[in-house]
Amino acid sequence: MCGVFGIFGHSEAANLTYLGLHALQHRGQESAGIVTSDGDQLYAHRGMGHVIDVFPTDQIDKLKGNIAIGHVRYSTAGGSLLKNAQPLAVDYARGSIAVAHNGNLTNAEALREKLEERGSIFQSLSDTEVIVHLVAISTQRAVEDRVADALTLVQGAYSLVCLTEQSLIAVRDPHGIRPLCIGVLRTDPACYVIASEASCFELIDAKFVRDVEPGEMVIVDRRGIRSSHPFTHARPRLCIFEFVYFARPDSVIDGVSVYEARKNLGRRLADEHPVDADVVIAVPDSGVPATIGYAERSKLPFEVGLVRSHYVGRTFIEPQQSIRHFGVKLKLAPVAAVLEGKRVVVVDDSIVRGTTSRKIVKMLRAAGAREVHMRISSPPNQWPCYYGIDTPTRSELIASSHNLAEINQYITSDTLQYLSLDGMVNAIVKTTGGGSNGSSHRHLTTLNEPVPALTTESFCHACWSGDYPIEFIPHPRHRQMRLLDT
Amino acid sequence: MCGVFGIFGHSEAANLTYLGLHALQHRGQESAGIVTSDGDQLYAHRGMGHVIDVFPTDQIDKLKGNIAIGHVRYSTAGGSLLKNAQPLAVDYARGSIAVAHNGNLTNAEALREKLEERGSIFQSLSDTEVIVHLVAISTQRAVEDRVADALTLVQGAYSLVCLTEQSLIAVRDPHGIRPLCIGVLRTDPACYVIASEASCFELIDAKFVRDVEPGEMVIVDRRGIRSSHPFTHARPRLCIFEFVYFARPDSVIDGVSVYEARKNLGRRLADEHPVDADVVIAVPDSGVPATIGYAERSKLPFEVGLVRSHYVGRTFIEPQQSIRHFGVKLKLAPVAAVLEGKRVVVVDDSIVRGTTSRKIVKMLRAAGAREVHMRISSPPNQWPCYYGIDTPTRSELIASSHNLAEINQYITSDTLQYLSLDGMVNAIVKTTGGGSNGSSHRHLTTLNEPVPALTTESFCHACWSGDYPIEFIPHPRHRQMRLLDT
Amino acid sequence: MCGVFGIFGHSEAANLTYLGLHALQHRGQESAGIVTSDGDQLYAHRGMGHVIDVFPTDQIDKLKGNIAIGHVRYSTAGGSLLKNAQPLAVDYARGSIAVAHNGNLTNAEALREKLEERGSIFQSLSDTEVIVHLVAISTQRAVEDRVADALTLVQGAYSLVCLTEQSLIAVRDPHGIRPLCIGVLRTDPACYVIASEASCFELIDAKFVRDVEPGEMVIVDRRGIRSSHPFTHARPRLCIFEFVYFARPDSVIDGVSVYEARKNLGRRLADEHPVDADVVIAVPDSGVPATIGYAERSKLPFEVGLVRSHYVGRTFIEPQQSIRHFGVKLKLAPVAAVLEGKRVVVVDDSIVRGTTSRKIVKMLRAAGAREVHMRISSPPNQWPCYYGIDTPTRSELIASSHNLAEINQYITSDTLQYLSLDGMVNAIVKTTGGGSNGSSHRHLTTLNEPVPALTTESFCHACWSGDYPIEFIPHPRHRQMRLLDT
Amino acid sequence: MCGVFGIFGHSEAANLTYLGLHALQHRGQESAGIVTSDGDQLYAHRGMGHVIDVFPTDQIDKLKGNIAIGHVRYSTAGGSLLKNAQPLAVDYARGSIAVAHNGNLTNAEALREKLEERGSIFQSLSDTEVIVHLVAISTQRAVEDRVADALTLVQGAYSLVCLTEQSLIAVRDPHGIRPLCIGVLRTDPACYVIASEASCFELIDAKFVRDVEPGEMVIVDRRGIRSSHPFTHARPRLCIFEFVYFARPDSVIDGVSVYEARKNLGRRLADEHPVDADVVIAVPDSGVPATIGYAERSKLPFEVGLVRSHYVGRTFIEPQQSIRHFGVKLKLAPVAAVLEGKRVVVVDDSIVRGTTSRKIVKMLRAAGAREVHMRISSPPNQWPCYYGIDTPTRSELIASSHNLAEINQYITSDTLQYLSLDGMVNAIVKTTGGGSNGSSHRHLTTLNEPVPALTTESFCHACWSGDYPIEFIPHPRHRQMRLLDT
Repeated sequence: MCGVFGIFGHSEAANLTYLGLHALQHRGQESAGIVTSDGDQLYAHRGMGHVIDVFPTDQIDKLKGNIAIGHVRYSTAGGSLLKNAQPLAVDYARGSIAVAHNGNLTNAEALREKLEERGSIFQSLSDTEVIVHLVAISTQRAVEDRVADALTLVQGAYSLVCLTEQSLIAVRDPHGIRPLCIGVLRTDPACYVIASEASCFELIDAKFVRDVEPGEMVIVDRRGIRSSHPFTHARPRLCIFEFVYFARPDSVIDGVSVYEARKNLGRRLADEHPVDADVVIAVPDSGVPATIGYAERSKLPFEVGLVRSHYVGRTFIEPQQSIRHFGVKLKLAPVAAVLEGKRVVVVDDSIVRGTTSRKIVKMLRAAGAREVHMRISSPPNQWPCYYGIDTPTRSELIASSHNLAEINQYITSDTLQYLSLDGMVNAIVKTTGGGSNGSSHRHLTTLNEPVPALTTESFCHACWSGDYPIEFIPHPRHRQMRLLDT
Repeated sequence: MCGVFGIFGHSEAANLTYLGLHALQHRGQESAGIVTSDGDQLYAHRGMGHVIDVFPTDQIDKLKGNIAIGHVRYSTAGGSLLKNAQPLAVDYARGSIAVAHNGNLTNAEALREKLEERGSIFQSLSDTEVIVHLVAISTQRAVEDRVADALTLVQGAYSLVCLTEQSLIAVRDPHGIRPLCIGVLRTDPACYVIASEASCFELIDAKFVRDVEPGEMVIVDRRGIRSSHPFTHARPRLCIFEFVYFARPDSVIDGVSVYEARKNLGRRLADEHPVDADVVIAVPDSGVPATIGYAERSKLPFEVGLVRSHYVGRTFIEPQQSIRHFGVKLKLAPVAAVLEGKRVVVVDDSIVRGTTSRKIVKMLRAAGAREVHMRISSPPNQWPCYYGIDTPTRSELIASSHNLAEINQYITSDTLQYLSLDGMVNAIVKTTGGGSNGSSHRHLTTLNEPVPALTTESFCHACWSGDYPIEFIPHPRHRQMRLLDT
Repeated sequence: MCGVFGIFGHSEAANLTYLGLHALQHRGQESAGIVTSDGDQLYAHRGMGHVIDVFPTDQIDKLKGNIAIGHVRYSTAGGSLLKNAQPLAVDYARGSIAVAHNGNLTNAEALREKLEERGSIFQSLSDTEVIVHLVAISTQRAVEDRVADALTLVQGAYSLVCLTEQSLIAVRDPHGIRPLCIGVLRTDPACYVIASEASCFELIDAKFVRDVEPGEMVIVDRRGIRSSHPFTHARPRLCIFEFVYFARPDSVIDGVSVYEARKNLGRRLADEHPVDADVVIAVPDSGVPATIGYAERSKLPFEVGLVRSHYVGRTFIEPQQSIRHFGVKLKLAPVAAVLEGKRVVVVDDSIVRGTTSRKIVKMLRAAGAREVHMRISSPPNQWPCYYGIDTPTRSELIASSHNLAEINQYITSDTLQYLSLDGMVNAIVKTTGGGSNGSSHRHLTTLNEPVPALTTESFCHACWSGDYPIEFIPHPRHRQMRLLDT
Repeated sequence: MCGVFGIFGHSEAANLTYLGLHALQHRGQESAGIVTSDGDQLYAHRGMGHVIDVFPTDQIDKLKGNIAIGHVRYSTAGGSLLKNAQPLAVDYARGSIAVAHNGNLTNAEALREKLEERGSIFQSLSDTEVIVHLVAISTQRAVEDRVADALTLVQGAYSLVCLTEQSLIAVRDPHGIRPLCIGVLRTDPACYVIASEASCFELIDAKFVRDVEPGEMVIVDRRGIRSSHPFTHARPRLCIFEFVYFARPDSVIDGVSVYEARKNLGRRLADEHPVDADVVIAVPDSGVPATIGYAERSKLPFEVGLVRSHYVGRTFIEPQQSIRHFGVKLKLAPVAAVLEGKRVVVVDDSIVRGTTSRKIVKMLRAAGAREVHMRISSPPNQWPCYYGIDTPTRSELIASSHNLAEINQYITSDTLQYLSLDGMVNAIVKTTGGGSNGSSHRHLTTLNEPVPALTTESFCHACWSGDYPIEFIPHPRHRQMRLLDT
């Protein structure tokens, strides 16, 4: 999972990108990068770690120019490599280009093989390097046409921002699997911004304009902003997991408020799986809105039964010998005053391996809970994601090999219930409005018609259903990169 | 504000102290330190920063022995000095001693002058160095008697843990201003722990035994645990601010659950200051329990109207020139879907300077709130704390120079109301029980009788009332230390 | 200027490369890198700074395998960029390849343009990336043939080591401008090493075998070591500056001992430019051997008149306001006992801008020297190097715009004299033998015939004579990379 | 071993102290510290590591005021502890005082016990903390009298600089074991500096005035500079090891040029122990002047047979498994061209354990030397130093348990000879003059009479002779500090 950001036409482009990435930090904490252009030349800085660590003040000052793109990246299985940090920036025959990418290509391996056969060299494992090679060998003249040309060869999920010496280009794949949206500075209506989520606009005093449409390319340059649809039309298939877990609750994606969607998931969960209990608590923080919805519908009191620590670092020392396995205790602590002697409903957004849920149930019981009823605001997670979310392999997903009773037994809850697939999709679809994001749709109809409302057909829910919208055929030569940076 | 921890009789004493400090991190993020003893010798490590940064694995391995104390420290006005990091550890005639201190002495300056007159030298500004000098010059023989002897000369607030080569000593001042409590490992009933708050026990698999009583000294050594009351009796005056803001919600202090206390503050606030509105939201995270109480009593829906960022660092770069003053936006973001068109009650625990509240109100309105009603779960904060909380000077406290109407106007809320002093005290007193902490009181009656229940007379509320339980007379020679480490 | 190292067939390949780079550190302190192969996969680590800082123990442990190459790099005008750190390692159609390069290509710009035209992308400014692209597009099958194929297109100076999954390849350009030599471990006669200078062999307990010949390619793989000459023969033109200044005095290059060569330069300088004086001193450390030669021939006593500091770091703080311009004083200090009242000859290897020489002369006079006679063991430096030494531009070279009298006046010496071009060349040619390096020539005649002895025609001395052996035509499109990492 | 520096009356006092410490860095690389005064308050910064690492620019800016002292410290057996970093700075009844100390007290343990008995606490193992306690309990009024009072109780070697709010005080112990001298800025004749060695004056543009006399106290304050001799007179016993090895060759100590002294040691060594050989080489760098003297007297050619690396760091990685024991090879490399087939005399200043000498002899033979004759410019080192040099214990000194033949056999030299004790002392005594340092003696006779010339009785040579000028009786309670910082 990753987050992307772009801005055109501001004297503090790098600074605003820095702030934008900070607000998108939940989409990736492994590495961060910014590339800017002063009209003639690109300036790049990338590093491992959080945005605030990668960019000390003096680094931002070196990133000159009025155009910028940025990227935050999630830790992937392949390990932490600086050279995989984005945006990727290169020189080619027509100038320089930098690309920041959220998503995953399903035919990257085949494309890479073809590119290598014609003599291309690869310095990373990243799909983004495939895209840049395709841009470089395009026979088109204008850079936006080269980008479009390159992307017609590509399959999979991508929300991209590209930077050239004099333009900013944003593209969302034809299925619109990953979100991408357009904003504009309140203080400067000529200064457009592009971001993975609208929740980052508030910090830089920008307002939401509209989502980039599936299959749309948006170009911003000195002539202003314009849009095209260079790809074959495809059915939109927005990733539902963005609503269930990944996106920030204050974001609105394709017209749907993430916060309201989560509350509706909780309400629906209460409808499908009520329980006779004393109190409803959340696994914080992502489970809170669904829990509020569950509490409202079930008329049970909402309480804070688990407190989340603000101080959990990435490098916490594993204790040795006699004390072990406290795992989730570093992050969560039970509130005995809420739990003691109570029948507790605990709402979480998903169960992956089951180990964390098991620890939570045990922790709640140790703090005095009389009964523990686990309720999950999405269906059993059985399939890996090929479109950009870094999920475990199938064999690690507990629901791919265990049924409901077995999982309930493993996590030691009194009862366990998941939201149904239909229930989930319908809860999202019926979430209307979405706060102020929706209200400015009409401000920029010059750009485009409003995005059509989502229907039950509009989603990718492959990780629950196995219904993959884009085929992923592992290439016969499929392999790890032969070159490993340490 | 600081947090202290101690443990006696565990082969991984340093490791458990490290975990304990992690769970007490909310009481101080500026510096951290651990001192251990292997029976003959003390081992110390202290550093600036968070616990996880100060203690890489190899440092913990160097801290040998079965006894340990630790300390986390809050940033004070005097600046960030490594040499003020605690525990302070010294050699003196009878051996070595290390002390970790939460609180503030009111006669430190006068004691320091007297000590200097007899030839003592001071290497820091810390009150703790005064205590250690007094221990060193005591004419008593046993170390616990020396500590008691030293503390009879001292006035003010202190919750201390001391480490010698072969014992652990915990002391709470006669007024019991700062909390301190005793636990025992579930896996080893002979292994006692001492901590500022019981909320850290869960992480190390310990259970609460009871609070250290005001004026009590607890000694743990090879002979076991024993208790004495070496000081003149005084009226208990527990700091209410621990309940309002400072302590973790999963702690129970002197028999009162912090979480329940906060909910009661919110209920009482709803009773005293109801408002006709659509939704109640909290300023996260400390305001959440009071908000739940307010929502419950007022029968208004509780919603997450402000999202808190997990990624705010201490060293965030201030942007320049055109963008400024986004301040609180780095930490909080509004959820438009909750706020748009609504009459909003927002509950916070206190107003200090008023600048943050003002930004929050403006942020809520910008996100679409139709009305904003600020409700504070404590009275107007008008007086500085002399007992260990690092508050601004009187002139910086908005309530010391402005009345309710003026503050309301400044923060631009539609209405503003504070909880009354009586309301606050009574809400705390009537909070009974407190989760599992209370239930093990009887397990160790050998130690002592149960602590008598708190009454309305049992608190220090000087920061609201100006009613200081211990006189603080600024010394005529009162000064900054003449020596400043950089 | 750079240093390269390679080793084939040792279980501690990375460790030995680390030591080898340490011994080559004088050839480049800006960045360091190592790439290893375990037979299937390459492992890379590169970083900014000295070898000991770039490679903590745990990094070396991650570099698995029995084959390794390494690189140290000098600071170039383009600034300090991590992505320019070598070896460069890439994946291409036939597998992976890593290249470490000492030298400079004269037609890189033109080749780069052609490569971009066919669709190649560039991620750095380094010539090495050009070489790797040419290897990738070669139509040859075997990797050594691809490398040879690539290098036939290349002009300029290069001493390369290349690493593939299963082989080590070393190449020296047809003119042999930069040195490169072969060694073998004393403890394992099947383990060959390649290095820029033989002086690094001692540290890893290897012995010198012979120099790689100009235009020779040496391949080491499981079948053993073999050699070819794939390029058109050219007249050898070894860089004289290696003898004058750059190489370590304990190196032997193409049969000539650097130490003896420098002593001969000093002797010849004394013949050409004697002076009536009391004492001869060196500008340490590079000037010492020439000074010993000058003292021997002139029969004047050699003394240590300038002491060099071991503690000069790269980041020394510039003092402000009242104290300034102490520059060279941080590095050199005069020994008054040697200088006071004396007529002093001071021998240095070259004058670049003249500012350092001026400070040295003033320092010697301030310490009591009665007369200061500057003697330079090479001719006036008037031309930039296009073959890999990072020299200032012509306009910065004092000798390109000032005559002898003017320079003498500027540096405030009593007299100033340079060694003649003929004198320099002849002094090198007549240096015979060269320590133990020469003696093992015959050990590996299976590899090749001994290198023919150097003659007066065998050198590149363009920086003094302007006689460039390879044309360097700045390309019309010649430019800075448009992409700048910060 | 340590170095101290002080300056009074300069607006860039911290900056000049920083430069002074840099020039004294050879006296201690473990830690560095500076304390300044602005007339009212002291400012301190200390850290582990080299001067340039401990003091980034912004740290120096924080050290305000016109008076400063500084300290560099050598690694001692007790390990590397930040809290032992000097200067030590404390508050006491009369104000603040900071002390930087070079030397070692012989009765520190007994004094410490007495101080603890009266109630003093100790935060470090350093002798300096004993001195500061004694100053604090002195009944004298003026700070210089308190310092003098404190030092009358102290035995051992000390060269001190002390800083108070308004004065700089320098003291040298009655035996004058460690050097200490006075300088004055060339640009400001009212600005006095104090330093361990005059060699640091050049860098800050100061000139030597004279040595501080044994037993002299020099006070610099607003009234100017003045001197007193508060202690009982004792026979001067300057440490000879300063001339043999420790001091910089460009220093002049008590009227003797270190460089000339070393040359005379070499000449005398040639007289006592001639050898029929082809070439004389030094173990660089400290052995070079003696080697030049040996070569001059023996009429053998001086050559650079061993090259010293500039890049040896403190943290060099120990290689594993198959390669080991290269030790000294990281630092020294042989020049085969100089050694091959030759009978070599190698001159070093001392042999401690013998392991380094053994490696050097083997390295020279491996590089082709036909014979290796080791000559040492001091007698066999048999006794530990109790006065401030961090020597190994007696059992580790090879000469304390092996005779000449045995050592020669161990280090595998053809012959080995040491300079005699008489020869060493006489060589130093007969070294007259000493460069410009001597010439300004008369400039400040207002300060004091010239120091009388050194005689053969003027030295401490206990490490060779066992003739200790001050008794060191290990205290019965002698112990490690019970408190260990990690």
